[in-house]
Amino acid sequence: MDYSYMKRAIELSKLGIGYTYPNPLVGAVIVKNNRIIGEGYHAHYGGPHAEINALKSAGEDVKGSTMYVTLEPCSHYGKTPPCANAIVKSGIEKVIVGMKDPNDLVAGRGIEILKKNGIEVIVGVFEEEVKKLNEIFIKYITTGLPFCIMKTAMTLDGKIATATGDSKWISNELSREYVHEIRHRVSGVMVGIGTVLEDDPSLTTRLKYKNGRDSARIIVDTKARIPLEANVLNLNSDVNAKTIIATTELAQEEKLKALEDMGAEIIVTPQKSSKVDLTYLMRRLGDMGIDSILLEGGAALNYSALNEGIVDKVVSFISPKIIGGDKAKSPVGGTGKKYVDEAIKLEDIKVSQLKEDIVIEAYVKGVRGQCLQE
Amino acid sequence: MDYSYMKRAIELSKLGIGYTYPNPLVGAVIVKNNRIIGEGYHAHYGGPHAEINALKSAGEDVKGSTMYVTLEPCSHYGKTPPCANAIVKSGIEKVIVGMKDPNDLVAGRGIEILKKNGIEVIVGVFEEEVKKLNEIFIKYITTGLPFCIMKTAMTLDGKIATATGDSKWISNELSREYVHEIRHRVSGVMVGIGTVLEDDPSLTTRLKYKNGRDSARIIVDTKARIPLEANVLNLNSDVNAKTIIATTELAQEEKLKALEDMGAEIIVTPQKSSKVDLTYLMRRLGDMGIDSILLEGGAALNYSALNEGIVDKVVSFISPKIIGGDKAKSPVGGTGKKYVDEAIKLEDIKVSQLKEDIVIEAYVKGVRGQCLQE
Repeated sequence: MDYSYMKRAIELSKLGIGYTYPNPLVGAVIVKNNRIIGEGYHAHYGGPHAEINALKSAGEDVKGSTMYVTLEPCSHYGKTPPCANAIVKSGIEKVIVGMKDPNDLVAGRGIEILKKNGIEVIVGVFEEEVKKLNEIFIKYITTGLPFCIMKTAMTLDGKIATATGDSKWISNELSREYVHEIRHRVSGVMVGIGTVLEDDPSLTTRLKYKNGRDSARIIVDTKARIPLEANVLNLNSDVNAKTIIATTELAQEEKLKALEDMGAEIIVTPQKSSKVDLTYLMRRLGDMGIDSILLEGGAALNYSALNEGIVDKVVSFISPKIIGGDKAKSPVGGTGKKYVDEAIKLEDIKVSQLKEDIVIEAYVKGVRGQCLQE
Repeated sequence: MDYSYMKRAIELSKLGIGYTYPNPLVGAVIVKNNRIIGEGYHAHYGGPHAEINALKSAGEDVKGSTMYVTLEPCSHYGKTPPCANAIVKSGIEKVIVGMKDPNDLVAGRGIEILKKNGIEVIVGVFEEEVKKLNEIFIKYITTGLPFCIMKTAMTLDGKIATATGDSKWISNELSREYVHEIRHRVSGVMVGIGTVLEDDPSLTTRLKYKNGRDSARIIVDTKARIPLEANVLNLNSDVNAKTIIATTELAQEEKLKALEDMGAEIIVTPQKSSKVDLTYLMRRLGDMGIDSILLEGGAALNYSALNEGIVDKVVSFISPKIIGGDKAKSPVGGTGKKYVDEAIKLEDIKVSQLKEDIVIEAYVKGVRGQCLQE
């Protein structure tokens, strides 16, 4: 076994980022006599799987070769016939698998088919890396709930805007581009009504070096206060990227009607402390096929989301600037915890830099664990 | 020339951290036939310089050897005779110097003596690193003002305490130990009266693995509200570490008298917006021989200090916790800047981790530059 081939398969799998949803990212490499003779990745939902693309791309007979594939080959007839059978038929001798299928209902079945047919199988190579790459898929397939990434951007003194409300720009261009990369990757972008009223964002994906995919826009708006002129309601966006208004019975019927007439989708949730019930909302969004959400909330929505345990991951941009101000807002508000001991803790911390900006990515302790175990 | 010997000299110089004040950190290595035959460092103020210690330590004749020394050898008779002369006398053939003496009055003179006596001299090896190591010395010798390090510790959502005021502990043990390392290194620790009234800190240096040196404690206290029972006034601290109360005419005479009777030193500054004039205070502290200050202020003092341009460096600890709270304080308060464009910018950013805590160290743009050029 040569680890570099799995690394290559992982790199290939990343080419599908943003397009495979709700399928996982998968890459595959076929190796014969220490030479790559075929490779492929799952490029978009509905298209052929990575293994099939790799087999097709092989310029010579694959008999006796080894396949490196990031995820267990499938065993079921979905949009495409099972990959495990195709591998068996091809005469491949050995299959190295990054991780088992996370879906309990089918996990291990593909591997079983391979083994039964005399193929040597090794499972769990760069497993952590593959799992991280497919964290969205894993959470969604195992819980039916969207994987939620909370994004914040603040100064080195913890402010998301000056005391007068100016926030252009806290973080630098590279950081903002990275946010659009995440928007491209997820299937929903969520903000609170406060953000819509203050900034009137369009929440589309704008990438410099490639075409981005717009995500569904989800506005948490307890009383449906959103103005009909709001940018998110008047977009020339991707066909599949709807604008969803999450509201409660506190909203006026006529307003909801008007919003629907403009093409918005309405989700009425029960009230939770006179606000949108975020846990209920997540379940509904999951049912609609939304596997992932970028939460770009204001301070109030961020606190509710963290408190209700719907946030899996935090991506925090810190700009090396100081603006001061007792009255300047910080990224998470609400009533807050009384004691530091009660803090929401983050783990598995990754720190990087985008020019002078610092990026901290981490997982909410407990939340991710729960999901992966459910 | 072999760079690794200068690296060794730099490592040696660090052994003096906390003890050479107000002298610089200097390390020296003597090399003959690619072998170190002597090394030394400046261990404490008043003691022999690095070069002399290196010469003394040499187990054999240094004639024809090369000396690597982090700072230009001195040319003046101070507490000890000039090192340049000792080097000439020793028969050393070549001297590699990290950086020139930053003191304009004597810069280059030591090098001149060496050259005049036929010694080959190379200057500017790992210069940036040596300058950083001696940033305190350089600012103080060139401006007469203390080098000021502002320390902050906050959660990933920008809070220094919960909304109810709990702050134990935002940062982890390693981060707190690092703060005591800085206290050990600087000659003054400065806080505002608010911190004294809320936390009643002792501001001494408590290190786990070595004996720390206490620094002078400077309390910024416009009206001398400090209670006579405050810990900082009732310490069993190092003889040289005074407690200094920086105040204004708004303080009551009798209170100042009582404080003096307890051994505190009083500095009365002019008023600046009805507060202690920090620029004036820095000048006075510099005159008293305080070359460096760790500012552990509350939000108000931090903002004033940054605004008055007395802060050179920021050390910010970020703990991967979220506590929320609209009313929770963040590290820099005051009125704050109106626009992000007016932010105080930081540069030369270093990011590291102490277990899960993230440490960001950076320099205030403009401030350091001014000092090094003055």
